[in-house]
Amino acid sequence: MKITCAKDRLNHAVQTVQKAVAAKATLPILSGIYLSAQDNKLELQATDYEIGISCTIDAEVDIPGQIVLSGRYFQELVKRLPGESVEISSSGEDRTIKITAGSSQFNLLSLPAEEFPVLKSLFDKTTGINSLTIKDNVLRDLIKRTVFACATEESRPIFTGALLELTEQDVRMVATNTHRLALKKSLTENTNSSNALKIVIPSKVLNELARLLSSELPVDISICWEKNKVAFNFEDVYLESRLIEGQYPDYNRVIPPDFGTIATINTALFMDAVERVSLMAKDGEYNVIKFQFNPNEVIITSNNPDIGKAYESVPVTTEGTDITIAFNAKYVTDILKNIGSSELYFSLNTPLSPASIKPTNDDNYTYIITPVRTN
Amino acid sequence: MKITCAKDRLNHAVQTVQKAVAAKATLPILSGIYLSAQDNKLELQATDYEIGISCTIDAEVDIPGQIVLSGRYFQELVKRLPGESVEISSSGEDRTIKITAGSSQFNLLSLPAEEFPVLKSLFDKTTGINSLTIKDNVLRDLIKRTVFACATEESRPIFTGALLELTEQDVRMVATNTHRLALKKSLTENTNSSNALKIVIPSKVLNELARLLSSELPVDISICWEKNKVAFNFEDVYLESRLIEGQYPDYNRVIPPDFGTIATINTALFMDAVERVSLMAKDGEYNVIKFQFNPNEVIITSNNPDIGKAYESVPVTTEGTDITIAFNAKYVTDILKNIGSSELYFSLNTPLSPASIKPTNDDNYTYIITPVRTN
Repeated sequence: MKITCAKDRLNHAVQTVQKAVAAKATLPILSGIYLSAQDNKLELQATDYEIGISCTIDAEVDIPGQIVLSGRYFQELVKRLPGESVEISSSGEDRTIKITAGSSQFNLLSLPAEEFPVLKSLFDKTTGINSLTIKDNVLRDLIKRTVFACATEESRPIFTGALLELTEQDVRMVATNTHRLALKKSLTENTNSSNALKIVIPSKVLNELARLLSSELPVDISICWEKNKVAFNFEDVYLESRLIEGQYPDYNRVIPPDFGTIATINTALFMDAVERVSLMAKDGEYNVIKFQFNPNEVIITSNNPDIGKAYESVPVTTEGTDITIAFNAKYVTDILKNIGSSELYFSLNTPLSPASIKPTNDDNYTYIITPVRTN
Repeated sequence: MKITCAKDRLNHAVQTVQKAVAAKATLPILSGIYLSAQDNKLELQATDYEIGISCTIDAEVDIPGQIVLSGRYFQELVKRLPGESVEISSSGEDRTIKITAGSSQFNLLSLPAEEFPVLKSLFDKTTGINSLTIKDNVLRDLIKRTVFACATEESRPIFTGALLELTEQDVRMVATNTHRLALKKSLTENTNSSNALKIVIPSKVLNELARLLSSELPVDISICWEKNKVAFNFEDVYLESRLIEGQYPDYNRVIPPDFGTIATINTALFMDAVERVSLMAKDGEYNVIKFQFNPNEVIITSNNPDIGKAYESVPVTTEGTDITIAFNAKYVTDILKNIGSSELYFSLNTPLSPASIKPTNDDNYTYIITPVRTN
């Protein structure tokens, strides 16, 4: 192999695929980045078998070929190379790859390219495959508004991922750890789906995908999936992920159809008060804080015998009956950080039934939170 | 106790003293911040017996008194309080302290104030005490240019601190871990010292002191010391530290009087090249990289059988004999990050004798580095 390419493009490609490089590689080859050069293109790939990412850039290809370089050292090196362009060539004699830029010259040991599990694009399959097209800003929003609600502990794997579902009216994402649930819908007319979509994608992959969806102008994302896999294709990137198997629970049953109390609250004031009150609850077993909804204010309190007591009052407009209820403070602050709206509705029924927090300006975003029983 | 003060000033005082709050307190009282109110002043103190910091701010004192609050919770709370002013009062009935700001109200458990080891200012002593006055920017510069060269491991405690010394011509700071040494002098005419100064201050304390010396306009710092202690006084802050006992070695013997080779190098180009070459040395036992000084270039190379080889060429102007020498890469990059000059002199004698790196624009700053023997 012998190629020349722009340093900035190479750095972009390396940064794009590097999150798929296995951190603790059970197989040494998975700690590498695969480079394949042909037809004036250089493709970089990395995979840890959960997530696989490929990025293709323009290159001047003098001699086509495939090599694998240590992900860690190649990434660190490319980031720091001087000048505008980089030349990469294999010697053929030994296992080293020569990387030249300006007056810098490096010989990196390579890994055996024939051992690398090269990604095969799902989009190239002709049978048993389903597909959908969606705008990147829509997908990014679905992810960012929900993925934080996934479970972090692995005891029930299905909840470590988020559900991506296509209904007749919308495309939606749902995440829950069974104590709280986030649902975001996007009304879609333009989705061009060949089949039903109901898949559970690991939260780690979704976070990585959201990071890569950073184009300034909206671009189309093609999604295609089969039984155990989903793949995303946009610009110069191909990303595939294993799916989490199992039956996702019926989340519609969790969402109360109506509420006896609805409070309208300023998000920033509420957020600050909840964060201060939760300081005095931090070491408590469940980080529990109490909310007393009155017609014109919500009184937020906590009491930790080892630290002290907190009392806050935030102005609200409450319709319906007064109610006192307790929540895990973290589950409240999580949604306040992600709600993206200056005002919210906090809707409740009884001290022991699920409540809802919604932005006032987006009826397609719902967050359900289960209260904590207190004495 | 009952006081009212400006929230921003209180936050400033808490942030100033909080680095002296014991992280892992052997004595529970040392995890607290001591507040003392009298004569329209509120003084905050914290100490872990190595470092002690006090900060005094204006306050409206209704009832004088002393209390101790948990450093951790008080700090987190004050940072987040709403509004402009804060009221702090003790109830007298129980151990809780009421903190009120806007519509926020907190009752923090207090610690027994009578157990707190209240700092007694060295400046109040009348006998056995020495003092010196220095500008804050001068002291900050002395610290920043040297303290990184201290030893981090504790096997020889004297090297975990830096020497502050007053000579007839200058005030100077020296730090070494025995493999490299940094010396920065500041010519002083205005120091008003009553006695010889030669003390070793823990690097941790110096780093904290440099952080606090951030005033925009130069201010005077009073320094005073006795056998085991040094204290610094500036603006509203009093900081005291234990001294490291023992004989600091004669660093003048380490500095070569002259050199056979002197290379003039662009700092930024040299830094980038050294960092890239050290990538291929990282996992090596000593992170060793080689420098070959020729009349017009320095060739920098490394070779790690597990990673690869690096080769860089940086233009230099070398006077004297050509020389090839090896150094621990970290000891070279450390000085390049702190040198504060766009050009430097790299001065050498033989492959096994100490070399010097100096800024071209500051004859009062010297860095000595011991080479590594290679085959």
